[in-house]
Amino acid sequence: MTDQTAVGKVYLVGSGPGDPDLLTVKARRLLDEADVVLHDKLPGPEILDLIPEDRREDVGKRAGGEWTPQEYTNARLVELAQEGKEVVRLKGGDPTVFGRGGEEMVTLAENEIPFEVVPGITSAIAGPAVAGIPVTHRDHVSSVSFVTGHEDPTKDESAVDWDALAATGGTIVVLMGVGKLPDYTAALREAGMDPETPVALVERATWPDQRVATGTLETIVDVRDEEGIEPPAITVIGAVADQRERVVEFLEGA
Amino acid sequence: MTDQTAVGKVYLVGSGPGDPDLLTVKARRLLDEADVVLHDKLPGPEILDLIPEDRREDVGKRAGGEWTPQEYTNARLVELAQEGKEVVRLKGGDPTVFGRGGEEMVTLAENEIPFEVVPGITSAIAGPAVAGIPVTHRDHVSSVSFVTGHEDPTKDESAVDWDALAATGGTIVVLMGVGKLPDYTAALREAGMDPETPVALVERATWPDQRVATGTLETIVDVRDEEGIEPPAITVIGAVADQRERVVEFLEGA
Repeated sequence: MTDQTAVGKVYLVGSGPGDPDLLTVKARRLLDEADVVLHDKLPGPEILDLIPEDRREDVGKRAGGEWTPQEYTNARLVELAQEGKEVVRLKGGDPTVFGRGGEEMVTLAENEIPFEVVPGITSAIAGPAVAGIPVTHRDHVSSVSFVTGHEDPTKDESAVDWDALAATGGTIVVLMGVGKLPDYTAALREAGMDPETPVALVERATWPDQRVATGTLETIVDVRDEEGIEPPAITVIGAVADQRERVVEFLEGA
Repeated sequence: MTDQTAVGKVYLVGSGPGDPDLLTVKARRLLDEADVVLHDKLPGPEILDLIPEDRREDVGKRAGGEWTPQEYTNARLVELAQEGKEVVRLKGGDPTVFGRGGEEMVTLAENEIPFEVVPGITSAIAGPAVAGIPVTHRDHVSSVSFVTGHEDPTKDESAVDWDALAATGGTIVVLMGVGKLPDYTAALREAGMDPETPVALVERATWPDQRVATGTLETIVDVRDEEGIEPPAITVIGAVADQRERVVEFLEGA
């Protein structure tokens, strides 16, 4: 970089749940026009294949198989923008929903890099929706809460208050919650939730190989094991989760 | 309809928060291709202008100024599909987030109409995001809850458990919550939330005339009145809401 170089711009872009048709018009255009696209694996293969190889940088993994530290990604965004590049930071779902987008915004502002947020569709809503499950329902639930099953490993214990979530009476959607399913379904039962509460797992929502499995707060761990449900998947807990059965015969697509 | 007519199909489509660039690729295509688009006012003028007049049906209001009953919309969707039409039911945001999409799915399935859900970006996430506010943050919050400020008027009292929501410790996002802002900010303070908790209002998120106002759980009602914030707007309550100040100088677009 020289003093003559005009600073570029960073777009924090959500890729949506994985189906390229669920990219926004703006995200689709930015993938064509950006000088560089920094991405990890979460947008999924169909979307990553849209980006020419010579304009892609994978910041999801390093050569040794380790995850790239967030500090590296932050520094790289700043560096590329300072070189005058138009940079897309492409993130699965929406960049601000359990996506570190907030941290990247602060880094960019602190380094005086102009940036813009381009929201994407979170799989936490789209996953249930394409499976026939609305996360809210006028008759059943007045709220929906989103939590992550992956806690920051530097925290001493789960910061999620499952008692309070159960007490809301609303739908609970857990992102990245396949592995810890036994823990939080037990916590919710201990918090007094009915063991018969419907639960659905949506694996690889909107991907060509999407799968859905359903059970209850009591049975869903066995269902997961029998069906072999693996990450990435969304867990939907609440009365709405049994709507799938009522509509699935006529539900198409996605 | 005759027995010879092949049944059509209904697409329950989210329009996103209002910026036509935040339509999904699929929604944009369906607006061009559908035989009929049933809509209300929520998608906003810029998106409604994309639909040719002769293929639009406004089910948001009837001639007398009254709201169209949901029963009419449901019946019309079935009728048009039975005539063999490809029908788009266009809804603001995402069809399954406080959007009656769940009810429409059930109606369609009960009438043996094939349908598909095309998720959209909810303003509950996009509104805060484009204002520089991530609804979750690794360091601050492990959950986010969405509630509606508009309760079903047939319910005897608010079904939202503000005590439980406050106890989650997560971000709270209220949709359609301008009018009842005094009620629920008081409820949250009574539930023990710190009166200094940051609060942001995002009016007409992603529309050309978007506005943002910020305050605290104690001051936000006065801020609303001074700034003249009106519906539609999103309320964001929680530590994340003060991130806007840290980034807004370099935040562009939307």
